[in-house]
Amino acid sequence: METLRSFVGGRWVAGSGSPQTLLNPATEEPLAQVSSEGIDLAAALGHAREVGGRALRGLTFAERGALLRGIADALQEERDALLQLGIANGGNTRSDAKFDVDGAIGTLLAYVDVANALGARKFLVDGDGLQLGRSARFHGQHIAVPRRGVAVHINAFNFPAWGFAEKAAVALLAGMPVLSKPATSSAMVAHRIMQVVVEKKLLPEGALSFLVGAPRDLPAQLGAQDVLAFTGSGDTGARLRALANVIRHSVRVNIEADSLNAAVLGPEAEPRSDMYELFLKDVVRDMTQKAGQKCTAIRRILVPREIFLSVKDDLVELLTPIKVGNPAEEDTRMGPLATKSQLEDAHKGVALLKGRLAFGDLERRPKGYFLSPILVESPGEAVHEHEVFGPVASLLPYEANAAELVARGNGGLVCSLYSEDQAFLEETIHAVAPFHGRVFIGHPKIELSPGPGTVLPQLVHGGPGRAGGGEELGGARGLALYLQRVALEGPRPSIQKLLG
Amino acid sequence: METLRSFVGGRWVAGSGSPQTLLNPATEEPLAQVSSEGIDLAAALGHAREVGGRALRGLTFAERGALLRGIADALQEERDALLQLGIANGGNTRSDAKFDVDGAIGTLLAYVDVANALGARKFLVDGDGLQLGRSARFHGQHIAVPRRGVAVHINAFNFPAWGFAEKAAVALLAGMPVLSKPATSSAMVAHRIMQVVVEKKLLPEGALSFLVGAPRDLPAQLGAQDVLAFTGSGDTGARLRALANVIRHSVRVNIEADSLNAAVLGPEAEPRSDMYELFLKDVVRDMTQKAGQKCTAIRRILVPREIFLSVKDDLVELLTPIKVGNPAEEDTRMGPLATKSQLEDAHKGVALLKGRLAFGDLERRPKGYFLSPILVESPGEAVHEHEVFGPVASLLPYEANAAELVARGNGGLVCSLYSEDQAFLEETIHAVAPFHGRVFIGHPKIELSPGPGTVLPQLVHGGPGRAGGGEELGGARGLALYLQRVALEGPRPSIQKLLG
Repeated sequence: METLRSFVGGRWVAGSGSPQTLLNPATEEPLAQVSSEGIDLAAALGHAREVGGRALRGLTFAERGALLRGIADALQEERDALLQLGIANGGNTRSDAKFDVDGAIGTLLAYVDVANALGARKFLVDGDGLQLGRSARFHGQHIAVPRRGVAVHINAFNFPAWGFAEKAAVALLAGMPVLSKPATSSAMVAHRIMQVVVEKKLLPEGALSFLVGAPRDLPAQLGAQDVLAFTGSGDTGARLRALANVIRHSVRVNIEADSLNAAVLGPEAEPRSDMYELFLKDVVRDMTQKAGQKCTAIRRILVPREIFLSVKDDLVELLTPIKVGNPAEEDTRMGPLATKSQLEDAHKGVALLKGRLAFGDLERRPKGYFLSPILVESPGEAVHEHEVFGPVASLLPYEANAAELVARGNGGLVCSLYSEDQAFLEETIHAVAPFHGRVFIGHPKIELSPGPGTVLPQLVHGGPGRAGGGEELGGARGLALYLQRVALEGPRPSIQKLLG
Repeated sequence: METLRSFVGGRWVAGSGSPQTLLNPATEEPLAQVSSEGIDLAAALGHAREVGGRALRGLTFAERGALLRGIADALQEERDALLQLGIANGGNTRSDAKFDVDGAIGTLLAYVDVANALGARKFLVDGDGLQLGRSARFHGQHIAVPRRGVAVHINAFNFPAWGFAEKAAVALLAGMPVLSKPATSSAMVAHRIMQVVVEKKLLPEGALSFLVGAPRDLPAQLGAQDVLAFTGSGDTGARLRALANVIRHSVRVNIEADSLNAAVLGPEAEPRSDMYELFLKDVVRDMTQKAGQKCTAIRRILVPREIFLSVKDDLVELLTPIKVGNPAEEDTRMGPLATKSQLEDAHKGVALLKGRLAFGDLERRPKGYFLSPILVESPGEAVHEHEVFGPVASLLPYEANAAELVARGNGGLVCSLYSEDQAFLEETIHAVAPFHGRVFIGHPKIELSPGPGTVLPQLVHGGPGRAGGGEELGGARGLALYLQRVALEGPRPSIQKLLG
């Protein structure tokens, strides 16, 4: 059985102690083992900060972008092997695995474009120069420079490729070295990516480190110039944010956590209309793609009370033929959950919702972490409070209170609205916007619409409150997490010469 | 003796229980008493969120700006009374009091300009529209909308007028209601401002609330849509950030805390040169203005080793005639510290520095919280770790290591450089920028230079690490704290109609 190693301090290092075993979640077959015990984390962080930081800060944005392009190209070459690993280790269907790997490549390439737009500078110029006094000599200019620490990325199990890329692309472009820690259970994809980066020498030494296995006390070793970006559960996010060093040294922390994303079918919706069909299609995709294990997946389906039964019947009809099984088999439409503990959490979560199952069952298979798509109706209050991270969504009728129901999620990543009623759209957008990082408006005339569950690198990703209060991506906006904005104040000639 | 009341829920409320007494720090004469006991904080927050939030969100930026202008004009009319209160209750010289009150008025007026530039919108449009798909129909647009909570501002004792204004102006312009809590010891200025706002009906009901006395569990009552902005000690900031609700609900927190601001005299400096004289002048001003009780005051004075003795002698000569006394007396150049506990902390802090006193003494007067200006030489390592919040600065020689010494402060509000050597400036700016929110470049040809200790509303104020990791002001940049950025994604016509 393969042993996955970490890449820290410029070399591959195997942990000691008793390893964790990575499985195929469809077959429970062991695939690899990992341990991070005994790895010198302080030295790993120090090497990244010193060697990697200096190398990246010496490059222009365009040069850093060329590095990202190199990674994107290498992932494209390695695509088939990565898809196979996603299928075996992630429980992904081939389509799920493509969503992850192609998402990674697309995000890297989007940041190549951002890099090229920023061009030959090594730091950001933020806004125009300002005349501060009566004479033009007294001048102000904001710039934003790379922080001198390391960006530690703790990624979720569901997107080992995309999750790596969306965080690393932005930090590397900003000029900060990265230490990337994939979720252990699905680490084989990220591990292969790291191997490719190392084998092909795609980055300067120290620019990217990789820790596989338990993070141990890594977050507790971060200081004032470091950044911690985490995607995962709200409970873990809260623990990270409460660490004494994080609080004491104002460590920058970005968290993407739980989200009860709502999709709202507009009040004017007619069953069988194009908008209605689009809504059903997006709901079913979000429930089943990656077995519902997307932080942006629709969890609350809000429909006008008068067509509630129609929507329910149609969703049941669409969910019925979804074949759940081993994604290595060609006719499988939905794979298993990623781990046994994810499956157990999903079962507990469905029970917490206290609703009736309009579709699906809770039967367990003898092998593999399978769960059928589950459509809940008449759920309890927990539908606005507890995210079930699996192929589970709740159907809720609304009357005039759609926006109020949405807001009860207390902060989410995305809310989607399916309507052509401009007054309804505007009123609802104004009401739900403060609670979200993104509002998606579905429209049947948009070809190849990715639906609300797809995160685009051009748009910000994150959300307030329950969603963790973070913000990533959004083109150049995402760089801010890794930069220190500083106001330069003084004689105009000196400042202008510095800007070049 | 006057009893100061809070203004919450649209009315003046006196606390119950045993009150705290506010003193004249020069004479220890009691001036007023306050208590916040018994005040229904949950109701106060609810009223601000519901009544104030709705009213402000209904206004355009330009209309909110007109409210700020109203406050600025009223403070201008009330200026003499406010200066008298600053002198009596704050230990301010008249010049110190003007710095506070005129800073408040100037900041409000600067945000009137920001408001007018933003004009007739009620929310921010952030960047250009984005084509997201092959066709132009699939469109993205970022906007930033007011958060639906309340902005709680916990202000420091040193700037009761400016501290109120710099936080409130930005939140109100963003469209968020404010609950402002001044430091108790010097609350009379902020209380008078609140009286003026209420008497003249300068704001819609609920837009501005005012809590005087202990904050009790106010910060623990904040939720996912609220904002907490705090200026004060790093210890209190850390306690606020660690609150369970703050962590659990991702409450937005902005902290301005300790800062060991360094001023660096360039390696080429010649004693008696204009640059040298400017440096001395700025150091002496920062040591003595407001008795050194400015978060931006110079704490570490870095000079080339070869002219160390010259700088020391000249600073001693400049500090010698500074008359410390009751600011009600006309020839007083420096007043007392604000409270007995501030004085005790300053004494402890000087002891912690473990240096020799090149100037000053630690004698206590029988009445009043007076401390002479104190110039420390040969301090221990604490000079980079412990802020003494008073008229205390340390003089340090450097050789080629100025930037390294500056960075040992581990995050500060401002670093100031006094040099015309462009290579030195550029190298040092690049080295110190990641550790600061502002870098000030002194130049003798800038007339009326405010020095590094003055915070300008056009430039960001805050700093990483020890300084709390916050950012305020910076013109429109400051609005971000009070807004939720949200990406709109969907059909271009719907989004463009929404933007108007």
